[in-house]
Amino acid sequence: MEALLQQLRSRLTEVYDLRAASAVLQWDQTTYMPPGGAAARARQLATLARLSHERLLDPEIGRLLEALQPYEKDLPYDSDEAGLLRATRRVYERALRVPPAFVAELSAHYTLSYDVWTRARPAGDFPMVQPYLERTLDYSRRLAGFFPGYEHIADPLIDYADPDMKVSVIRPLFAQLQAELSPLVQAIRGRPQVDDRALFRSFPRIRQLDFAREVVRQIGYDFERGRQDLTPHPFTTAFSLGDVRITARAVENDLGQALFGSIHEAGHAIYEQGINRSFEGTPLGTGTSAGVHESQSRLWENIVGRSRPFWSFFYPRLQAIFPQQLSSVPLEAFYRAINTVRPSLIRTDADEVTYNLHVTLRFDLELEMLEGRLAVGDLAEAWRARYQADLGILPPDDRDGVLQDAHWFDGNIGGAFQGYTLGNILSGQFFQSALEAHPEIPSEMEQGRFGTLLGWLRERIYQHGSKFTAAELVERITGGPISIEPYVRYLREKYGEIYGI
Amino acid sequence: MEALLQQLRSRLTEVYDLRAASAVLQWDQTTYMPPGGAAARARQLATLARLSHERLLDPEIGRLLEALQPYEKDLPYDSDEAGLLRATRRVYERALRVPPAFVAELSAHYTLSYDVWTRARPAGDFPMVQPYLERTLDYSRRLAGFFPGYEHIADPLIDYADPDMKVSVIRPLFAQLQAELSPLVQAIRGRPQVDDRALFRSFPRIRQLDFAREVVRQIGYDFERGRQDLTPHPFTTAFSLGDVRITARAVENDLGQALFGSIHEAGHAIYEQGINRSFEGTPLGTGTSAGVHESQSRLWENIVGRSRPFWSFFYPRLQAIFPQQLSSVPLEAFYRAINTVRPSLIRTDADEVTYNLHVTLRFDLELEMLEGRLAVGDLAEAWRARYQADLGILPPDDRDGVLQDAHWFDGNIGGAFQGYTLGNILSGQFFQSALEAHPEIPSEMEQGRFGTLLGWLRERIYQHGSKFTAAELVERITGGPISIEPYVRYLREKYGEIYGI
Repeated sequence: MEALLQQLRSRLTEVYDLRAASAVLQWDQTTYMPPGGAAARARQLATLARLSHERLLDPEIGRLLEALQPYEKDLPYDSDEAGLLRATRRVYERALRVPPAFVAELSAHYTLSYDVWTRARPAGDFPMVQPYLERTLDYSRRLAGFFPGYEHIADPLIDYADPDMKVSVIRPLFAQLQAELSPLVQAIRGRPQVDDRALFRSFPRIRQLDFAREVVRQIGYDFERGRQDLTPHPFTTAFSLGDVRITARAVENDLGQALFGSIHEAGHAIYEQGINRSFEGTPLGTGTSAGVHESQSRLWENIVGRSRPFWSFFYPRLQAIFPQQLSSVPLEAFYRAINTVRPSLIRTDADEVTYNLHVTLRFDLELEMLEGRLAVGDLAEAWRARYQADLGILPPDDRDGVLQDAHWFDGNIGGAFQGYTLGNILSGQFFQSALEAHPEIPSEMEQGRFGTLLGWLRERIYQHGSKFTAAELVERITGGPISIEPYVRYLREKYGEIYGI
Repeated sequence: MEALLQQLRSRLTEVYDLRAASAVLQWDQTTYMPPGGAAARARQLATLARLSHERLLDPEIGRLLEALQPYEKDLPYDSDEAGLLRATRRVYERALRVPPAFVAELSAHYTLSYDVWTRARPAGDFPMVQPYLERTLDYSRRLAGFFPGYEHIADPLIDYADPDMKVSVIRPLFAQLQAELSPLVQAIRGRPQVDDRALFRSFPRIRQLDFAREVVRQIGYDFERGRQDLTPHPFTTAFSLGDVRITARAVENDLGQALFGSIHEAGHAIYEQGINRSFEGTPLGTGTSAGVHESQSRLWENIVGRSRPFWSFFYPRLQAIFPQQLSSVPLEAFYRAINTVRPSLIRTDADEVTYNLHVTLRFDLELEMLEGRLAVGDLAEAWRARYQADLGILPPDDRDGVLQDAHWFDGNIGGAFQGYTLGNILSGQFFQSALEAHPEIPSEMEQGRFGTLLGWLRERIYQHGSKFTAAELVERITGGPISIEPYVRYLREKYGEIYGI
């Protein structure tokens, strides 16, 4: 068995080496590539994608999986070997179902649609992308069709990002959450508003980035196994478990961009850096789902990075870096400023309380389109109606309305948004469990110590990579299913106190 | 035929896309990769190398070459199609001869030997690398053995870097050159020496790099299709003809490092940026040989970049950037300082006159080892003897003696050095021809205009990529064979004037 497993690992490593090469080329494209490199880079990435797909679908991998099947039932479910076989089977069998010609066609459509979107968005021109989005919807439906037997047409699409998650689980969860959040948003709107103007003074970008690096290093991001570069849209990318990079955007008049963006990406990266090194080059060697990944970026960014204990440690340091801008702003005023709740147009800039309303409405609209209840031609109007209903604001144009996210326009409808809110929900559950195990975490944070929290997260979540699904992790950690309760309680307590509700 | 050619091109593009991906990963490794990324990166590069080799050796390429053979004789020799078929046949047939197991073994040995060298060099410990170098010599001999029928055992090894060049051509050329240079060096040593201390004052690195960028942009390096990053050892790398990057090293107390290093690399890059764009993704889409490549880096660095017309334009600008350091140094003193001739230990720091003596002695030692006339165990001693004889200086240790270059220790003996001096020789021939065609070149340089020279080089050399060999280019341009005469005359005139000989 060990020999067969070794053969399987070596075939998989080849696939993942090609994917890592793609990741390096993409990272370079976004950070340093000169304009003249664009055309060849697109071709090189297509070649790498095609080869890694071909190598994954090599029949030898199927034969190895088959030869290993007799041994699999004797392996403990929690063993690395069983996890490797489960994860490989999932990836392999999913890839097998989709005809290569469809993959190529879809990939060409992605590129085209995304390109049109990059021009349509600044112009706020929804009709320009509408025909592409209609084809995207058609492709997404056809993609789901390769997985017959689904409960809901979105399930196979969601499965790519959040394995084993289903509309039948997510929809009620999101409905409950919305039912809790809407009154909270209403209550906050009835209270005196927070003054957050201190965050929008002039903060030289270099010093913002220096401080952000100091913060992410302190919480546990390892620069020996990563680095930070500048990009217009921050992201995290892993070339191996020893090289997990983050990027940031810094805006002179907005202190939050570089700072919270960096903590967010560091959260993703700390997860990847914590994965069992022996999983590298296999399907186990990455975070297990979009939701669990986002639970870590949001946990570090918000639950930790916008908490009072965190800033009671870091704020004097921040004031020392920006004395002119912040010396007259007390810690408490800064804490309230970074936790301002204010319904706004753009998801990625939203506060913790309203953020999920941006996501749940997108998720609903996706499902309506996939179910055939909403035509693409009516999407912009439906978007405006939902913003009015859920957030009480009306987007003035499609640029900051239906065109704001790259998702959908980058080639698929269904599966791109649920992970954001699943992540928030999970961040509440995971942090509550960490606190139950280690009630000293907040007082350690006041001293700038994050090791206990990080150690617990590594032990319970990070090291496992993709060995367990999100639902399995939640069950192992909390003894129960995914639940909005801890997250809602966290928001109620935190914002109840800030807004005196 | 066009359909067959198209199939061939598309197969080749796949191979060259994989090579481009390797180049990006190597560039990243040297510029930005965190230490933790090293282990996985080595594996990823090995995977890419193996796959691109496999794809090149796909029998389908052989079948296409065979199917195209009947058409080939009707194609004009100068046509792109004929060039493509010649270059592909060369690359394909060469790759076919070397067994894949040998390639893998050699590649593993490269890595090991290089790694030992990186530790042996700082320690000056030649015995530490000696057993590895002995194996390297054995591998180099075996590699040559896959190409029976050679005139000299080094010929097949030289052919990898300088196609069609042979020991029987190079050896007499280098002997003639040495016979000319040695008396010149002697004559210079008998004259009053140049004072170049002005170059070793304190020059802030950022401003050095800003100036270097300004210079390389002005001579024709296109930053829209390239960029410059910092590395300990400068190099040029092309990811496509639209993305040709250079690197530089800047040393605070040595003005020449960033400046001439940048011009040198820009010379390589300007060559690649000038190649016919339709050659991309094929064996035609790169410079034709190590020698011709080096002829361009040296032409721009030395013949142009250390000339009086060049500095009569740039020196006032340099003085404006470093007024404290240079305002009291007249142009003429600066010109003499950057052209100081002084026998020294390190090849890469050598001046124009002594540089080739460093190369010819290495070339001779290589041949002696390959011919079995010099044992690896006697190499360090032979090295010292040649430095004493040829340059009149005795290396105080092996660190700055036989261990100074990565070549040999990076896994092959034979073929790594001749390109440097072939390049210098060719730079003299090419520049003389450019001057004959455009006598106005020097006076244009005085005005900071390099377009006439660049245009001539593009037209005669760059656009052709690898369509013609070095010997063919020389023949097309000068009507004769490679000759040391123009280069020697250039050196005699320039240094005769500086040193009053």
